[in-house]
Amino acid sequence: MKLPNTPIRVSDLVVKFFEYKNIETAFTVSGGGSIFLCDALYKSQKIKYVACHHEQAVAFAAEGYSRVKNKKPGLCFVTTGPGGTNALTGVAASWIDSIPVIYISGQVFIDQTISNKKIRQLGVQEINIIDLVRPITKYSAMVTDRNEILYHLNKAYEISLSDRPGPVWIDIPADIQSNILMPKELTKKNYFLKPKTARKFKYEKQIKKIAQLIIKSKKPLIHFGHGVKLADGQNHAFNLMKDFKIPFALTWNASDLIPHNLPNYCGKPGAFAERGANFIVQSSDLYISVGSRLPFMVTSYNPKNFAKNAYKISIDIDKNELKDIKKRCGFDLTINMDAKEFISKLYVHLSKLKYNNTGIKEWISYCANIRKKYPILLKKFVAQKKYVNSYYFINLLSKYSKNNEIINTDMGLSFVGTHQSFNIKSLKQKLFTNSGHAPMGWGLPAAIGACFANNKKRVICLSGDGGLQMNIQELSTVMHHKLPIILFIFNNFGYLTIKQTQESGLGGRIMGADKNSGLSFPNYKNIAKSYGIKFFQIDSNKFLENKLKKILKYQGPVICELIMSPSQPQIPKLLNRRTKDGKFAIPTSFEDLYPYLSLEEINKNLLLNSNN
Amino acid sequence: MKLPNTPIRVSDLVVKFFEYKNIETAFTVSGGGSIFLCDALYKSQKIKYVACHHEQAVAFAAEGYSRVKNKKPGLCFVTTGPGGTNALTGVAASWIDSIPVIYISGQVFIDQTISNKKIRQLGVQEINIIDLVRPITKYSAMVTDRNEILYHLNKAYEISLSDRPGPVWIDIPADIQSNILMPKELTKKNYFLKPKTARKFKYEKQIKKIAQLIIKSKKPLIHFGHGVKLADGQNHAFNLMKDFKIPFALTWNASDLIPHNLPNYCGKPGAFAERGANFIVQSSDLYISVGSRLPFMVTSYNPKNFAKNAYKISIDIDKNELKDIKKRCGFDLTINMDAKEFISKLYVHLSKLKYNNTGIKEWISYCANIRKKYPILLKKFVAQKKYVNSYYFINLLSKYSKNNEIINTDMGLSFVGTHQSFNIKSLKQKLFTNSGHAPMGWGLPAAIGACFANNKKRVICLSGDGGLQMNIQELSTVMHHKLPIILFIFNNFGYLTIKQTQESGLGGRIMGADKNSGLSFPNYKNIAKSYGIKFFQIDSNKFLENKLKKILKYQGPVICELIMSPSQPQIPKLLNRRTKDGKFAIPTSFEDLYPYLSLEEINKNLLLNSNN
Ligand SMILES: Cc1ncc(C[n+]2csc(CCOP(=O)(O)OP(=O)(O)O)c2C)c(N)n1
Ligand SMILES: Cc1ncc(C[n+]2csc(CCOP(=O)(O)OP(=O)(O)O)c2C)c(N)n1
Repeated sequence: MKLPNTPIRVSDLVVKFFEYKNIETAFTVSGGGSIFLCDALYKSQKIKYVACHHEQAVAFAAEGYSRVKNKKPGLCFVTTGPGGTNALTGVAASWIDSIPVIYISGQVFIDQTISNKKIRQLGVQEINIIDLVRPITKYSAMVTDRNEILYHLNKAYEISLSDRPGPVWIDIPADIQSNILMPKELTKKNYFLKPKTARKFKYEKQIKKIAQLIIKSKKPLIHFGHGVKLADGQNHAFNLMKDFKIPFALTWNASDLIPHNLPNYCGKPGAFAERGANFIVQSSDLYISVGSRLPFMVTSYNPKNFAKNAYKISIDIDKNELKDIKKRCGFDLTINMDAKEFISKLYVHLSKLKYNNTGIKEWISYCANIRKKYPILLKKFVAQKKYVNSYYFINLLSKYSKNNEIINTDMGLSFVGTHQSFNIKSLKQKLFTNSGHAPMGWGLPAAIGACFANNKKRVICLSGDGGLQMNIQELSTVMHHKLPIILFIFNNFGYLTIKQTQESGLGGRIMGADKNSGLSFPNYKNIAKSYGIKFFQIDSNKFLENKLKKILKYQGPVICELIMSPSQPQIPKLLNRRTKDGKFAIPTSFEDLYPYLSLEEINKNLLLNSNN
Repeated sequence: MKLPNTPIRVSDLVVKFFEYKNIETAFTVSGGGSIFLCDALYKSQKIKYVACHHEQAVAFAAEGYSRVKNKKPGLCFVTTGPGGTNALTGVAASWIDSIPVIYISGQVFIDQTISNKKIRQLGVQEINIIDLVRPITKYSAMVTDRNEILYHLNKAYEISLSDRPGPVWIDIPADIQSNILMPKELTKKNYFLKPKTARKFKYEKQIKKIAQLIIKSKKPLIHFGHGVKLADGQNHAFNLMKDFKIPFALTWNASDLIPHNLPNYCGKPGAFAERGANFIVQSSDLYISVGSRLPFMVTSYNPKNFAKNAYKISIDIDKNELKDIKKRCGFDLTINMDAKEFISKLYVHLSKLKYNNTGIKEWISYCANIRKKYPILLKKFVAQKKYVNSYYFINLLSKYSKNNEIINTDMGLSFVGTHQSFNIKSLKQKLFTNSGHAPMGWGLPAAIGACFANNKKRVICLSGDGGLQMNIQELSTVMHHKLPIILFIFNNFGYLTIKQTQESGLGGRIMGADKNSGLSFPNYKNIAKSYGIKFFQIDSNKFLENKLKKILKYQGPVICELIMSPSQPQIPKLLNRRTKDGKFAIPTSFEDLYPYLSLEEINKNLLLNSNN
């Protein structure tokens, strides 16, 4: 971006900066403390502003936008005080899931900030938001010199996208917002970030070694995480898998990285997984994780047991994560590098070494068979007479949704069940959820952001009844912009996930999780009417297929309530076995999912002998 | 509280602690990370838990509870991760307005916390909430040793209530939550806080001096702030005013401190005020502020001009505030002490000195007359043909609401207009809003908290349409508990306050504030139906009085939509005059409210001569 050559208001320059970066949408709730920033957005010909009804939704929408765009940050404008604090859950969410989001906040006049006065507030609705966001942003600053505005914006922008991405926050006092910049006062120093000196690449040897390990391995497994997509390595990963046909698995945050119809796809191992995927991990002799922080939801709470028969390698951009992975999960080799770079180099080495998978045919067919043996969708789920079964629904949605459709979810069953069993059909289809912070109420606003990122093409949003409540006001935003969003409400009359935890952990003492224990929910038909949105309700599996097909003919906005059982199991899942007297938990084996199989059956399902 | 004498689960002890402190209600959203804490609440016979639908509402409800109880903290239980971050706006709100609220959060197992690993998350849905709340709490800690639980609880409790009250936060890892405490391991050290050594009282002389200044003053004014109520000094202040009949004013946060029908009541001076109140401040020769931090909304942005003809004294518990007041507002004398103590001592000294107000008859009648000369409720507001006029409505509500009624408001016009003109009739009537952080969406959840604090007696909640959206899901909580809340929605089709700021500051470029600029709102009749709540709508002043009387016969839950003008003025207010060319603002004089009076009329309204 060129330095301006005529006087320009700081707020206008802020917006011009984002125009230059080709960000087309900004999410906001207007306010007095951000008045000039809002005004600059208003005047922009290139950036469309979307006024949400809560700053939490602003933040979630921006995250949804960035997830769809990839390599482009979401953009939020919020006002002083509560405008900023309301966005904090969104900041934490994108911090933990490494999504680049830029927050611009209004602040009171500089001389009205508390600075070091040790009082709680000075300016009207003042809060020192930078103190609050510091622990959960990659960069944050209050602009105190108008001439440094481009410096801060550039720095924030670069940092949000670089290495391991994440949120950044720039706080702009009202007097700076309205200040006029004089071009002659702007110097390059105020403007340019020192370009980073390109890192020297030093892992050639190790990647070659990994290629050789793959060649030697009888049972290799590559496990791709979200880091691959964040590094823009989706196509590279796809090509690697398509061309070399090495068995691969995905994490939930990378659900949509590679289509699941590749024959070497092995599912998503973890705490809520298909059994097959976990058996594959435990049978592999070479396990390579690329771009995943391997949280407990992937490794289980007994992470040393994870891939216990394999030589374990992790590639990640964040060296602190690698340190943790090495120690916590007992990894043999860790390489601190960009996922895309790793994948490209590995491709080259495997090509040079003329790798093909003929030596692992047995392993490949084992992987395919063990997955088939234990499908997520059980016959009894389909045969279920009362209520819509969520697994059956996801199976059908997977079948009938479009190849380039965007699907996102809220938390609880809509999250877990969907990531367990939705089949991604193409590189263009997207399925995502915030999985690290996992705030209820994320689904609908993130769908709104995704929809704007996708040229207002259709988005399918799956949400629990509990989660929907947390940002139900955003139906206003859907209505206002007539967004083509189909919202499926998984109505199981409460917080199913919590109820099930309480049932298994507390002998059935249910608290704050359904009507009997203190939670009521609105009538969704009337809710839809309140917001002028078309409404459907489906209450059983009967005709589900046809009903769904019909609903999917609509663009939206549509709300479809799915009446589900208040006690539908979420299985399989890792759950500690207990000693006979029930008193103590026995550390979980990664292959031992609930509902438990006999140890005999488990052992038969592991492919270990060929290894000896 | 006695040390337990049988083994007890930490979570149960936490709840027992609050039972012992006579807290009857805890607000919560359940979660897996707080499962044992929730369970302990479930088991409690004495504490009722209220399950809200968003942790922001949990926090606001707890603040509402504490505001009604006074001298008793609100109590929140939230889960890990988003459970905590969702509550942050509430923490900031009670921090700035000095409301004692205790937050108990669930945390992941201690060995799953990131501690010093420099990664972004380790445990499932982990966030280091203590890092985030530290800047906006009086005390915060993660409990890492089960034997220290009572120490932390005691300390948090005492600190939240002492001196200048505020929020505190205790984070309890799941393994500690479920741990069993062995009485013999508990020592006094783990339990008792060192009692504070009583502070020596050293201001006797100064208070005597103030009493003498009052006696000498021709035009004294005492201005009471929220600190008086927080110090439990409401009755003392009332008696002082009733017995000595010194003219007194209130701040918005102290709206309901003293009934407004005392003849020496002078209104609430400030940026949105009755003209009379500001004239009185500017005419006074002795101005004494008790328990107020004198924010810009009280003093205007030109605070040295505030009470410019008076000898200015401030009494406050927070010495940093006093330092700021002294410097920013040019005060002559500041005393760092408890408001109740000050008031009691002043009472004694004035009695001893046999003070009576015969010497200031002229001043007293000036005060009464100048207020009458410029009422808030203008004739044209009553005569308005289209729409309900908010000032007329408040006037009627003030007339017909009960003497012991609780009224609370959200932000925008419902806040400003109400505090400008609602007449408090008795010591038992309550009117409050969070005025420092002023987060939209505060009204409804705070009303819920207030209702529980008030034995489920009726609460009247006034909310804008914009603000209501931000926690509209809490209608579920109202419905579930069938709470006697009458919710009046000030429907002016958008963010009136923002629109007016944009109109005056940006030449009418409206952004994100009404339908044309990007915001739509639901149909409230259908919303009420969705939640099974009785609904009324009033669309003009016609028969307003009778309609209101009828509605006030209901206990609730009731929603009443008031259709108001999308351009209703909020006047009078401080607004900078401008130079003739409109380019520059002229520093505002505190007595010069918009709509502007002629400088001649202003000067006539000031009572200055008698002073010379
Ligand atoms: C903001 C927030 N609060 C609490 C939680 C803890 N939590 C996880 S799942 C869940 C229940 C979700 O209920 P619902 O959305 O109806 O989905 P269900 O479990 O019924 O499928 C709760 C309370 C959370 N994830 N986010
Ligand atoms: C959470 C939050 N975001 C933004 C603001 C800034 N703000 C102050 S008043 C207002 C408009 C309020 O609209 P409404 O509740 O309808 O009241 P009205 O002004 O129309 O009376 C806004 C956006 C705020 N106070 N709180």
